Amino acid sequence: MSLRVIATGGTFDKSYDPLTGALVFVESILPTAIARARVTLPVSFEPLLALDSLDMDDTHRAQILSACERSPENNIVIIHGTDTMRETAQVIGAAGLKKTVVLAGAMVPYRIESSDALFNLGFAFAAAQLSAPGVFVAMNGQLFAWDRVQKNKTAGVFESR
Amino acid sequence: MSLRVIATGGTFDKSYDPLTGALVFVESILPTAIARARVTLPVSFEPLLALDSLDMDDTHRAQILSACERSPENNIVIIHGTDTMRETAQVIGAAGLKKTVVLAGAMVPYRIESSDALFNLGFAFAAAQLSAPGVFVAMNGQLFAWDRVQKNKTAGVFESR
Amino acid sequence: MSLRVIATGGTFDKSYDPLTGALVFVESILPTAIARARVTLPVSFEPLLALDSLDMDDTHRAQILSACERSPENNIVIIHGTDTMRETAQVIGAAGLKKTVVLAGAMVPYRIESSDALFNLGFAFAAAQLSAPGVFVAMNGQLFAWDRVQKNKTAGVFESR
Amino acid sequence: MSLRVIATGGTFDKSYDPLTGALVFVESILPTAIARARVTLPVSFEPLLALDSLDMDDTHRAQILSACERSPENNIVIIHGTDTMRETAQVIGAAGLKKTVVLAGAMVPYRIESSDALFNLGFAFAAAQLSAPGVFVAMNGQLFAWDRVQKNKTAGVFESR
Repeated sequence: MSLRVIATGGTFDKSYDPLTGALVFVESILPTAIARARVTLPVSFEPLLALDSLDMDDTHRAQILSACERSPENNIVIIHGTDTMRETAQVIGAAGLKKTVVLAGAMVPYRIESSDALFNLGFAFAAAQLSAPGVFVAMNGQLFAWDRVQKNKTAGVFESR
Repeated sequence: MSLRVIATGGTFDKSYDPLTGALVFVESILPTAIARARVTLPVSFEPLLALDSLDMDDTHRAQILSACERSPENNIVIIHGTDTMRETAQVIGAAGLKKTVVLAGAMVPYRIESSDALFNLGFAFAAAQLSAPGVFVAMNGQLFAWDRVQKNKTAGVFESR
Repeated sequence: MSLRVIATGGTFDKSYDPLTGALVFVESILPTAIARARVTLPVSFEPLLALDSLDMDDTHRAQILSACERSPENNIVIIHGTDTMRETAQVIGAAGLKKTVVLAGAMVPYRIESSDALFNLGFAFAAAQLSAPGVFVAMNGQLFAWDRVQKNKTAGVFESR
Repeated sequence: MSLRVIATGGTFDKSYDPLTGALVFVESILPTAIARARVTLPVSFEPLLALDSLDMDDTHRAQILSACERSPENNIVIIHGTDTMRETAQVIGAAGLKKTVVLAGAMVPYRIESSDALFNLGFAFAAAQLSAPGVFVAMNGQLFAWDRVQKNKTAGVFESR
């Protein structure tokens, strides 16, 4: 068993820019987070995109799907913004790959106090190894099938639909 | 689906005592960690023990087994010290419960910089929901069956045996 | 000796809002920061404003000056945004109070990884006790007189002028 | 103005060893802490010792005094364990150097949650620049003369004597 981790940006990976006061994308925190987690499973990391998921369009989703298709690993974690995580999950889900793909993100950036990012990463690492082939969203300590999930933007949580 | 989380102490939950300079057990960090993780799954938390796992004996392991037996939830996460995690897993594993029990811990306390604790908690939350009944150790981004795991104390990692 | 600490907002005190993804003001972190610092000096904390300093106008600066004037303590720390810290320092400096007033802030919010906020707070606590009456800006490990300081916005540092 | 920062170990600089579970000294965190603080003042860093201050003897204190004597900078911060900070301050104080020497430490290691270390470092940086020649202890948000301070080990705070 080995895992592919694909970074696409999202809140998980945002960083504070002291000069502008904005949250921006710099180098992905994922290699640091995986080292911190003391993971001994072979992991190949692919920094594919660095986008707020509200800025993603069909072309970006096609790129993500393509990255899943050509991944030599059959167990894939995608770190993704929460706002359109469901939309990307639908594109990958509809493709019917024979791989286990788990999308995860964070409501608070990894680099900010009390972030849920590291928990979600751990959850996704387990889900990507233990679930049958399919496409899933891992958030709030739960695993949702790609076609039965929505983000409740008022409450800031994912829920079944 | 709902989850039982049982605290028994271990490195995961150690706290620095400014007066003595020692790492000690105070109130468990687990409720704080679960809140931070924004978990929406129903979780019942049971603070059972607060011990370094090197200080555990057969009586303590019997208490942990008993807590698993009487748990109304069939999906259980046990936070445990790493040094004798395997021994406790063997006691629970040999009992043949029809429940999914995942033991997890940390190499670095939750409250210390660059801790693996929150990742391992997320991993265990997924493993406890997604695995068939059985007893498992979740460390280093991997899930090990209770009778096929050992801690390599020189390297500080869990591995198959 | 006792100290007054006045919060006015600024980067120091910004907090991440998981629902909107914006950095906003909630309850000031200052009481938490002062407790963490294990300060035994008597401190009275005054949460006066909660503003990005770019949003401050003359009325706000008059409020801050007034808070300094009526402060029963003669040693005052003001936590303030960096963008117009100099302007506020000038308003207080021109008033010629017989008090020691130290303005400090942060380039990275207290709640974000690798923040300079706690260091700057410690620096300001010392400067407010050890400096003669006057108005000062404490940033980047240096103390600047109110009429000889400017923010270099390209480099993100304060410097003499 | 430039500053010399001398590391001698102490709680401030302790690091958790995942293999042994002990708090030990590895490379000093001070260069990282000073960079995080965005200090623009010239600072020369001298990693002199790496000891728990309970393990210091007269030879170590002579080494620290000697480092102060030969320091080309007249403003010196010494990071030191709290248990015998007063004893070292007395050795340096009795030498009557024409330099400003500020000893500081921490009750909680820098690398542990809610540490006072970074605040104390900021406080010491200001005190070392703003105080007249002499030897001081900077802890708990206060500056104490070397011959009028003691550690209250029950309360874990420094106080006047």
